[in-house]
Amino acid sequence: MTLRDRVGAVIDSPLFRNAILGVILFNAIILGLETSKTVMDAVGGLLITLDGLCLAVFVVEILAKMFVRRWAFFKDGWNLFDFVIVGIALIPAAQGLSVLRALRILRLLRVVSVAPSLRRVIEGLINALPGMGSVFLLMTLIFYIGAVMATKLFGAAFPDWFGTLGKSGYSLFQIMTLESWSMGIVRPVMETYAYAWLFFVPFILLTTFVVLNLVVGLVVNSMQDAHHVEADERTDNYRDEVLARLTDIEMLLKERDKKD
Amino acid sequence: MTLRDRVGAVIDSPLFRNAILGVILFNAIILGLETSKTVMDAVGGLLITLDGLCLAVFVVEILAKMFVRRWAFFKDGWNLFDFVIVGIALIPAAQGLSVLRALRILRLLRVVSVAPSLRRVIEGLINALPGMGSVFLLMTLIFYIGAVMATKLFGAAFPDWFGTLGKSGYSLFQIMTLESWSMGIVRPVMETYAYAWLFFVPFILLTTFVVLNLVVGLVVNSMQDAHHVEADERTDNYRDEVLARLTDIEMLLKERDKKD
Amino acid sequence: MTLRDRVGAVIDSPLFRNAILGVILFNAIILGLETSKTVMDAVGGLLITLDGLCLAVFVVEILAKMFVRRWAFFKDGWNLFDFVIVGIALIPAAQGLSVLRALRILRLLRVVSVAPSLRRVIEGLINALPGMGSVFLLMTLIFYIGAVMATKLFGAAFPDWFGTLGKSGYSLFQIMTLESWSMGIVRPVMETYAYAWLFFVPFILLTTFVVLNLVVGLVVNSMQDAHHVEADERTDNYRDEVLARLTDIEMLLKERDKKD
Amino acid sequence: MTLRDRVGAVIDSPLFRNAILGVILFNAIILGLETSKTVMDAVGGLLITLDGLCLAVFVVEILAKMFVRRWAFFKDGWNLFDFVIVGIALIPAAQGLSVLRALRILRLLRVVSVAPSLRRVIEGLINALPGMGSVFLLMTLIFYIGAVMATKLFGAAFPDWFGTLGKSGYSLFQIMTLESWSMGIVRPVMETYAYAWLFFVPFILLTTFVVLNLVVGLVVNSMQDAHHVEADERTDNYRDEVLARLTDIEMLLKERDKKD
Repeated sequence: MTLRDRVGAVIDSPLFRNAILGVILFNAIILGLETSKTVMDAVGGLLITLDGLCLAVFVVEILAKMFVRRWAFFKDGWNLFDFVIVGIALIPAAQGLSVLRALRILRLLRVVSVAPSLRRVIEGLINALPGMGSVFLLMTLIFYIGAVMATKLFGAAFPDWFGTLGKSGYSLFQIMTLESWSMGIVRPVMETYAYAWLFFVPFILLTTFVVLNLVVGLVVNSMQDAHHVEADERTDNYRDEVLARLTDIEMLLKERDKKD
Repeated sequence: MTLRDRVGAVIDSPLFRNAILGVILFNAIILGLETSKTVMDAVGGLLITLDGLCLAVFVVEILAKMFVRRWAFFKDGWNLFDFVIVGIALIPAAQGLSVLRALRILRLLRVVSVAPSLRRVIEGLINALPGMGSVFLLMTLIFYIGAVMATKLFGAAFPDWFGTLGKSGYSLFQIMTLESWSMGIVRPVMETYAYAWLFFVPFILLTTFVVLNLVVGLVVNSMQDAHHVEADERTDNYRDEVLARLTDIEMLLKERDKKD
Repeated sequence: MTLRDRVGAVIDSPLFRNAILGVILFNAIILGLETSKTVMDAVGGLLITLDGLCLAVFVVEILAKMFVRRWAFFKDGWNLFDFVIVGIALIPAAQGLSVLRALRILRLLRVVSVAPSLRRVIEGLINALPGMGSVFLLMTLIFYIGAVMATKLFGAAFPDWFGTLGKSGYSLFQIMTLESWSMGIVRPVMETYAYAWLFFVPFILLTTFVVLNLVVGLVVNSMQDAHHVEADERTDNYRDEVLARLTDIEMLLKERDKKD
Repeated sequence: MTLRDRVGAVIDSPLFRNAILGVILFNAIILGLETSKTVMDAVGGLLITLDGLCLAVFVVEILAKMFVRRWAFFKDGWNLFDFVIVGIALIPAAQGLSVLRALRILRLLRVVSVAPSLRRVIEGLINALPGMGSVFLLMTLIFYIGAVMATKLFGAAFPDWFGTLGKSGYSLFQIMTLESWSMGIVRPVMETYAYAWLFFVPFILLTTFVVLNLVVGLVVNSMQDAHHVEADERTDNYRDEVLARLTDIEMLLKERDKKD
């Protein structure tokens, strides 16, 4: 038994899996405690040391996996996910960008790759994405057209909301979520451009209708998948049985015909 | 017939059930009237006395049930529910904590344990919960990661909204419900951190998508349950009949073969 | 042919139906024009006269229907609906209550009773109501309990929002619709009662979950109804055919047995 | 091979299709860049020239299609769509109305007529519309009645919100989307008319219920369509097979009877 086999046996054992899960959750609590000024003033040094230890465990785990799996390591999406997450955590250890420090909590996402039930939920969510591709493309189209039009029409008078394509896109997203669309945005705009509602009300109706159709599509797809997997198995068994019986009966009759 | 049998016969009678239902509704009206200062000034003493009487009825009812059922009393979830509700009502009778006094209206929830149609709705809601377990876990994960990141990124500049993990969690819940997310929170934050939308817009899209999948899951599950219970019974009868007939026909044919 | 038969033939003719539909729509336009001060100043007298004429047509129509149908008139829900609508319109003719004058536009609802396609939509909506009964009862329970608790807990400090049971109920309805729940209500309340979110966040989750289950229930019910009406008819025909054929085959076999 | 055939071969080739798609996307980027003042100051002339070139390509393409298809050109809805879109773009080339200039970005919608996957999504959305006809009519009715009532009841005191039928309609649409309905509109109105909630809360419940039924209807329709297209084909094949087999068996039995 080579070293590689032995390491492989360890990293595939349920005990090792649970230990890693424990380290992830422990690390999440530490990163949570680090957000409190009171706690940091009291035991900040200890927390940072423990955080470093957790990260070391993750690095060793990934190196071990890479040693065992070799190139196959990079063929599994979940391994790549872990690799990137831990990689992000290693960057700010060198430098001090606050955004990168905030991203370290993403390590908690490793729970998903370790816990099978969460993994299934995520895979379900990801499987739902391709069916949404065309609708997503259509949404991009609607937002790009809407942003160009809003910038040209209202950009000069309302630079904070519609001054650039980016600002218009953000404002239209806010309007699509219906947040303060009328009292906050459209009523003030209508004081300058009385017919602004001719742009915004159809935009709301259109985006709502597209989102609605997306939801309906998701329901119908899920239902068909569920229907096929489960109910059809029993139906197929029954149908095979009926056809086999009918074949038997025909055989019996034909054999008699031949005998006579 | 022992005393226990006789008491048991009384508490299982529909008359007793309806009487208790009447006391619950009467008590709810009294607790509602107690919220009005005018009514309390006029007949406050009477209301408090009647409230005490209703509570006494509930205590006697539960004691009677415990006397009849003995330990089996605690095995029924609805009995435990009644026990806790009435128990809460007994605490503030001693002391004057306003929160505990407000909780006394929870006694009205006993209507659910007494009225069968409501009981079925509640049991339906509770049955829907386990299927939501993984999604609920995923939501907790998203909120914990989001709260840690928001506290680290925006906590220093916006202590009221993102000063602590708890405040960030509450603000993110508000943002998930889309209430004033842009005009109230994200636009002010973007005046300090121009790229804050890179955190909040994906957060909104992600949580909305997870909630959407939860809804789709609930629809699909309910549909399958309904489909199985009802439609499949008729289908099963039909299929059993067809298979039995085919068996008969084969038997007839085989018997003839043997006879010949 | 009596007078009653002749009147009956007239009111049942499609021409009469369409004429009444025309009068309803014409009346709706007049009532719409009456809201404009400019139009009223110019041709107010004419509009009021035309409105009176339309009302006269409706009164004559209903009297004719009552004359033909006699007591059967009151057995049809749609007739009663027309009777009440026109009745409301007759009251303000005598007196000048502005609310009653505003209710006259409800006459336009008579379109529903005349146009069959709208009638079917409304009947569909009404058919969906009974299945919502228990959920509606549960909602009433949650709102009553919530209103009593909110009044007791926050009524003293926030009399405008939670001063009475009615005000609390209205505020809770606003919170259920998620309108300004946090920025407008819960954040101000939390400045006085820091733990107010322990009441409001569960209230939002609970009511949202109940509404969600109502929606799921509606989808499942509609789906089953649609499934039964359409798909099952074809399936039933097929199944009857298969069973009939199997019976034939058994008969043939048994007759042979007897013959031999 | 006439000129018409040769031009027809060109415009039907995938290469030509992709080239046009490229021009559309290139034009969209140019129109997007035109919204930025910095870019316009630097290379404004170039952008306007390129925009003109793109438009020329579209005009030539449409003329070529009209030359090949002749009158059949106007029978295809997508051709008419392209014709109108490019037509809109030609008007502001002559005059300078800013709204017409903003409408030029609608040219990007031509992507939909060129890309088949988007075309299918749009056709799906359009197919969903007829089933919504009656509900749309009912909504118009509810909004007209609501607008007339709101104008008569609250128009005098709140001219900005309910001063005219149009303003009332817009405000009611805002209320239907639940945006600031309570804090922004109904609470201020209730300070003057204490019973205003008797109008607005039922309006919200009614419109929400109608929209809900629209969604349920869309889900049920989509489900049935999907069910019919896919699952029924396999079922039909199976059923035809069973009936054919049963016919065979009966034939065999009857032939034997005749032979004997």
